[in-house]
Amino acid sequence: MDVLGVTVSAPQDLPEHGVRVAFVELANTKLELLEPLGQGSPIAKFLERNAAGGVHHICLEVDDIGASVAHVGARVRLLDAKPKIGAHGLPVVFAHPKDLCGVLTELEEVQPASQRTQQQQQRQQGTAQQGHQGTAAEG
Amino acid sequence: MDVLGVTVSAPQDLPEHGVRVAFVELANTKLELLEPLGQGSPIAKFLERNAAGGVHHICLEVDDIGASVAHVGARVRLLDAKPKIGAHGLPVVFAHPKDLCGVLTELEEVQPASQRTQQQQQRQQGTAQQGHQGTAAEG
Repeated sequence: MDVLGVTVSAPQDLPEHGVRVAFVELANTKLELLEPLGQGSPIAKFLERNAAGGVHHICLEVDDIGASVAHVGARVRLLDAKPKIGAHGLPVVFAHPKDLCGVLTELEEVQPASQRTQQQQQRQQGTAQQGHQGTAAEG
Repeated sequence: MDVLGVTVSAPQDLPEHGVRVAFVELANTKLELLEPLGQGSPIAKFLERNAAGGVHHICLEVDDIGASVAHVGARVRLLDAKPKIGAHGLPVVFAHPKDLCGVLTELEEVQPASQRTQQQQQRQQGTAQQGHQGTAAEG
């Protein structure tokens, strides 16, 4: 149902992440809608605690994930020592919510278009309809 | 402590809203940090349920709050029939979280600069250091 009058992407299964996603596309950010997929989905526990849903995490774009890991990782715990490849083929890392006011926070490397390799551009175009990011994401 | 390497505004008491706020200023959004202020703060219950903190609400900017109330209010419940004046002297309205996947969602009218009256511009400049908006806000 059209509630906010904005574009919503077609749902997409991401079995390797255990979620089904769709993106609500706003002018300067996207809201990521998450649904558990399969057994042991990483968001299943969140939905047990929040039966009505809620904001699962926020995602902040960064220019250089290595620099961000060094800077942020010196101040708060990261869930992984090294970035992983996220849903959009881009490097991501999560910071521990207990170190950031209870907010699970993802950092995603999104280089300026001028610096992207052709391969990155193709990956991003391929996932353009699921977009990403900005500053909010919900379950 | 500087964690994310971004500007954080000075904390400001908003006794009429029962909160103390500070804003983490990002390129295209702001994170609103909320702390209960006084007795019966509207965020006290949230912190009882989420002792470690969490994302209290998100805020979406709209151009015309009247049009948004009509459009969104026809689809989901609003917490107030009419907009109230929010922390930045701008009209705001909240939609019921149970109708939006458990996410308390605020709409804030932020007109394009070209359409703002001088009075609005002064109000906004006056609150520039607490900024607002975008798409995320946390407790």
